[in-house]
Amino acid sequence: MKIAIDAMGGDHAPKEIVLGVNKAIKAFNDIEVTLYGDQHQIKQYLVEDPRVKIIHTEEVIEATDEPVRAVRRKKNSSMVLMAQSVADGVSDACISAGNTGALMAAGLFVVGRIEGIERPALSSVFPTMDVQGVVMLDLGANADAKAEHLVQYAIMGSIFAEKVRGIENPKVGLLNIGTEEKKGNELTKKTFELLKEADINFIGNVESRDILKRPADVIVTDGFTGNMVLKTIEGTASSLFSMIKKVLMSNLKTKIAAGMIKSDLQGLKGLMDYTEYGGSGLFGLKAPVIKAHGSSNANAIYHSVRQARDMVNHQVVDKIKNAVSKNEME
Amino acid sequence: MKIAIDAMGGDHAPKEIVLGVNKAIKAFNDIEVTLYGDQHQIKQYLVEDPRVKIIHTEEVIEATDEPVRAVRRKKNSSMVLMAQSVADGVSDACISAGNTGALMAAGLFVVGRIEGIERPALSSVFPTMDVQGVVMLDLGANADAKAEHLVQYAIMGSIFAEKVRGIENPKVGLLNIGTEEKKGNELTKKTFELLKEADINFIGNVESRDILKRPADVIVTDGFTGNMVLKTIEGTASSLFSMIKKVLMSNLKTKIAAGMIKSDLQGLKGLMDYTEYGGSGLFGLKAPVIKAHGSSNANAIYHSVRQARDMVNHQVVDKIKNAVSKNEME
Repeated sequence: MKIAIDAMGGDHAPKEIVLGVNKAIKAFNDIEVTLYGDQHQIKQYLVEDPRVKIIHTEEVIEATDEPVRAVRRKKNSSMVLMAQSVADGVSDACISAGNTGALMAAGLFVVGRIEGIERPALSSVFPTMDVQGVVMLDLGANADAKAEHLVQYAIMGSIFAEKVRGIENPKVGLLNIGTEEKKGNELTKKTFELLKEADINFIGNVESRDILKRPADVIVTDGFTGNMVLKTIEGTASSLFSMIKKVLMSNLKTKIAAGMIKSDLQGLKGLMDYTEYGGSGLFGLKAPVIKAHGSSNANAIYHSVRQARDMVNHQVVDKIKNAVSKNEME
Repeated sequence: MKIAIDAMGGDHAPKEIVLGVNKAIKAFNDIEVTLYGDQHQIKQYLVEDPRVKIIHTEEVIEATDEPVRAVRRKKNSSMVLMAQSVADGVSDACISAGNTGALMAAGLFVVGRIEGIERPALSSVFPTMDVQGVVMLDLGANADAKAEHLVQYAIMGSIFAEKVRGIENPKVGLLNIGTEEKKGNELTKKTFELLKEADINFIGNVESRDILKRPADVIVTDGFTGNMVLKTIEGTASSLFSMIKKVLMSNLKTKIAAGMIKSDLQGLKGLMDYTEYGGSGLFGLKAPVIKAHGSSNANAIYHSVRQARDMVNHQVVDKIKNAVSKNEME
């Protein structure tokens, strides 16, 4: 299996990207990796291996670039070349920690949508208190969505949870502002009706206050709400941890106590560590496209490779294709 | 000034409601309170005072009642009688910790909207790390909203922040999934354009990850998103605190450390304590209608009374009325 990786995307590129690739190559003997980017920089960190090659390019899409324009104009950027190799059938999947919008544009315009999928969705496995994690989508690929799109998200998330995460008959919940059937806005009310008829294990509405308690295996929402909730959880957790830190550093007594619980609290932070959960998947495209977190370290990249590999091995794209055409015939 | 209070609403009614009233009567010598509810139960807790009277009724709107139907049918319920006293001009403001939907229905159908206000909005002062708090609305009065409604929310929130919270020229932010002007869904993009023209201090988009850092004095959003974000913050904070508690109770060493920092951490929880911030206001009605939290204790009720009193003293309703008619003429 061949995986294309943008070596130049993300806050710690190319170093952490390459270190993550080193780790993945060692762990998985069935993968070959092509790194796109500046070969001089890449070689500083790369452990040479016959299963890793470099395609040299000096063009890079920056975090500040306007996504669609950057993808259209920077044809020789590491990200676009990476996506092109998937479109050409040279690679089976691709990974970038670069500009999210640009990667979505590259996915849409270069890799292309599965026939029948109206909108690709950005999906992540979100940390939960029981460490199982929950598949959430859409996290922001499309700010505006129709009920029909949310049904496709639900089908795609369900397939990913079952095939890649090994959850039998995964429970799918609709993110809403109340658990009762009639709750919500026009979009969630209509989506609820459609999900009841869909060929998935729909368990009804779930509330955002319960996400960390894993109220379902897959949580479906529109990209505006998903992105909003994702950032709210991140922001609340980070604000609280920084407040706790301030309290613990406030006087001698608390500092001594802090020393005593440091390792235990670190374990807690580890629980919420996104790097263990792989990247976000752009579901609905003709091949797996993984968005690694912008601040990805080597471990996050390693897990993104693992995730891409699982998606290819379990033929997630083909299964989505079949489910969508089946759903359309009904 | 006369304040009408539903003595039977909320998880700890009537006890905590009445204890809160006892405290408020002692603190504010310019208020008179009418308590609606079961006089036998109320009298168990009430400190008799010539400025407090009871209107006896045995009918109650339950938390499980369907809101609109309950308000239409339970004409003698403590909540409806309370709202009616405001509609009749007998009271200047009202407070209930009961069924939120029913209180919104009572506000809309019994108290009535200010002319020109299309939708009332539910607004709260949300705890922030600097203890200042931020005015957020709509938190769920209307799941679906148009850009024009959000502009009215912004005007109402701005008036509340200035008059009741004493913030000069309050900064108003639009809750969005990015700070750039072009970010968001159709609703936020259109709202952004309208807010630029409105007669408020609009500072642009603010992100949900920054809410606890108080990125603005007033944050405007639609009721679906507002309710979603509110519940996400509550759920994340509560999940994290329970995880921390578990860590601190995990072994002898952490238990000793926990004992050493207990009071400091409690201070932190206090920072996030909603009871200090009063209730939620239903803005856009002909008189102040305050929704106290369902689990309100005496302190929360006391602060809700303080808030109602401030809104009456600062003539918030009249100021909203003027601002709306001014905005319409432009």
